[in-house]
Amino acid sequence: MTGDRNNNDVLKPDIVISSRVRLARNLERYPFPFRMSREQSLKLLSEIKDIVIKSSATAADNFYFVDIQKLNPVDRQVLVEKHLISPDLAESQIESAAIISKDETISIMVNEEDHIRIQCLYPGMQIDAAWQLCNNLDKLFEEKVDYAFSKDFGYLTCCPTNIGTGIRASVMLHLPALVMTGYIRNILEACSKLSIAVRGMYGENTEAAGNMFQISNQVTLGQTEQEIIANITSVASQIIEQERTIRNELYKQNPYRFEDKIYRSLGIFTNARIMTSEECMKLISDVRLGIDMGIIKTIDRNTLDKIMLLTQPANLQKTIGKPLSPEERDLRRAELIRELIKR
Amino acid sequence: MTGDRNNNDVLKPDIVISSRVRLARNLERYPFPFRMSREQSLKLLSEIKDIVIKSSATAADNFYFVDIQKLNPVDRQVLVEKHLISPDLAESQIESAAIISKDETISIMVNEEDHIRIQCLYPGMQIDAAWQLCNNLDKLFEEKVDYAFSKDFGYLTCCPTNIGTGIRASVMLHLPALVMTGYIRNILEACSKLSIAVRGMYGENTEAAGNMFQISNQVTLGQTEQEIIANITSVASQIIEQERTIRNELYKQNPYRFEDKIYRSLGIFTNARIMTSEECMKLISDVRLGIDMGIIKTIDRNTLDKIMLLTQPANLQKTIGKPLSPEERDLRRAELIRELIKR
Repeated sequence: MTGDRNNNDVLKPDIVISSRVRLARNLERYPFPFRMSREQSLKLLSEIKDIVIKSSATAADNFYFVDIQKLNPVDRQVLVEKHLISPDLAESQIESAAIISKDETISIMVNEEDHIRIQCLYPGMQIDAAWQLCNNLDKLFEEKVDYAFSKDFGYLTCCPTNIGTGIRASVMLHLPALVMTGYIRNILEACSKLSIAVRGMYGENTEAAGNMFQISNQVTLGQTEQEIIANITSVASQIIEQERTIRNELYKQNPYRFEDKIYRSLGIFTNARIMTSEECMKLISDVRLGIDMGIIKTIDRNTLDKIMLLTQPANLQKTIGKPLSPEERDLRRAELIRELIKR
Repeated sequence: MTGDRNNNDVLKPDIVISSRVRLARNLERYPFPFRMSREQSLKLLSEIKDIVIKSSATAADNFYFVDIQKLNPVDRQVLVEKHLISPDLAESQIESAAIISKDETISIMVNEEDHIRIQCLYPGMQIDAAWQLCNNLDKLFEEKVDYAFSKDFGYLTCCPTNIGTGIRASVMLHLPALVMTGYIRNILEACSKLSIAVRGMYGENTEAAGNMFQISNQVTLGQTEQEIIANITSVASQIIEQERTIRNELYKQNPYRFEDKIYRSLGIFTNARIMTSEECMKLISDVRLGIDMGIIKTIDRNTLDKIMLLTQPANLQKTIGKPLSPEERDLRRAELIRELIKR
C-alpha cells in the first residue's frame, strides 16, 4: 500500500474532505425492493429497525428513525446534502427509511435499491475506520437475519455492479490545483484504468462542484473488502500527493498571482449580496485552498465546512426556517455566509 | 440658469469631483512660447515669478516655484496626476514653470502653449469661486504687465480656440449610472450641440477612466466670462440631476442587485493583491457610488479621494519612494489601498 509512506500527510484534513464506506445487503426472505409489496416493505422496515434498536441498551437513544415517505421534499434534500441518504432514496416511491446515528456517522438506508445499505461516514482520511464500523454493523445484522448470499458470487445485490462484497469505499477529495492545471484529466484516465470511479459531490451523474471529486471502487467482485479498501487508500494517497505537489508549485511559481486569486474570491465571498449555489461552491473551493495553504487565517476549516453544508439549497431553507424561491435563496445564502464568518 | 433650482443638491460632493477655471494669457512684449528664444523664456519666467512673489507679504511662503526642466519624469507626472500642470507642460522642451500655491488650489503655468495659464482648482461644485480667484490673479498680472489684447478679439492666444476670454471652465463629474444605462450617449450628443466639450480625466484625448467626465466650454469668443461660467454651471447641474435620478431609479428597481455590484467591487478592492491602474479606477467608481448612495459606510470620501490620487502611477512611485516597474506598481497599488483603508 503506497499510501503508508505518507500516512501523516494523508491524515491532514487539507485535501480529503471525508471517507465513506457502504455495504449493500439483501435478506433472503424478501424480494428485491422494487418488486416488494407494500406489506413486505413495511415488515422489512420494522424488522431492521428492531434489530438496530435492540442492538444495545443505548441504541434507541443514539439513533433516529426517518420515514422517508413522511418527509417533505426539503427535509429529504437536507439529508441528501448531508450525504446521509442517497438521491435515489430521497425520490423513493416505496416505503423506505433511514436509521441515522445522532452523530450522523452511521446511516442505514432500508429499501433503497437494496434492502439494506449500511453507510459509515467520517471526516478526513479515515477510510479504514469507516470500514471497521460498517463491518461491525454488518456482523450485527448477520447474526439476526439471513443475507442473500451465494457461495459463488458472494452477497447478492439488486444491481450486478454491487454483487460480491457489496462494498463501495469512497473518499471525497478537493482537487483545485489538479483542475486549474488540467492535470485532473490524467487522473481521471488513470483511475478509469484502475477501475476506480470518479464522481461529483453527490455521487453518480453529479457535477464536481467546487472541485470536489468522489473516488470509489468500481469492482466489488473478486477482491476482498481489505483489498478494495487498500486499493482506494493507495489511489487516494497518490492523488493527494499530486494535488499537494501542484499546489506548492503553483504557489511558488507566482505567489502574488496565487494569493491574488485566493483573496479576490475571499473578497467576493464575504461581500456579495447575491450568490448562486454554483458560485458559492467555486468560491468555497478557493477559500478552502487559501486556508489549506496558510494564506487565509481569518476563517477556519470548520466554519467553511459549516458554510458549505448550510448554503446548499435545502439546508439553507431549513436554517432560515421557511421555503425560499431560488432568488430568495441567493440573497439568504450571501447573508448567511457573512453571518457564519462573523461568528 | 436652471441649476439654481437645485443649488443645495449641486453643492453636495457626491457627483462633482472638482471645479476648475483657467485663463490663457500672453504678454505683448514676447513672441508666443513656441517661437521664443531660451533667453526670452527665462526672462519671462523670472518676470512672472517676481510678480507672484511680490504680490503680498506672504506670497513667497505660500507659493512654490517648479522649474519643469529640472524635474524628473515621475515628478512631472505627479503634478499632472494632481491636475496641477497639463500633460503638455509635463512634456515641455522649453524653459517652463509652474507656480503652485501650497494648498494646491492655484497653479500658474508659465510658457505652456501660452505665456501664462492661470488655473484655480476647487473640490466639489465651486466653479464660481474658482472663477473669482482666477479673476483676482488675472487683475494682479494685468496691473504689472501688458497683455496681448485686441479690441476686436479680446485676449490673444497661441491657439485660436482660446482667443477672446481665454477662459476654460470645467467640472469633473462622476457619472457611473449614466454610463451603466448608456444614457451617457445622449448627454454627449446634447453637450456637443451646446458647444460643451466632454473629455476624460486628464483633458483632451484621455479616456473617461472610472466614469469620470470633464465637461468644459468650447467657445471662448462672443460670450462674457460670466455667461460661460453660468452656461457650464447650468449644463453641469442638469447632468448631475440626471445622474442622480438614474442612480435612485436603478437602486429602487433592484436594491439587492445594486448593492451586490457595489459590495463585490468593495470586496475585490479591499482584498486583491494585484491591481492595475485601470481596474483600480473602475472599482473606485463603484465604491464611490456606494459611498454616495449610503451603502458603504466603512470608507469615507476623503479616503477614497486619497486612494484615487495615490494609486496613480507617478504618485504611487512617489509614495513608495522609488521607481517601480508596472508589475511592481500593481502589487504596491493593491497594498496601498488596504493600508489607506485600514488607517
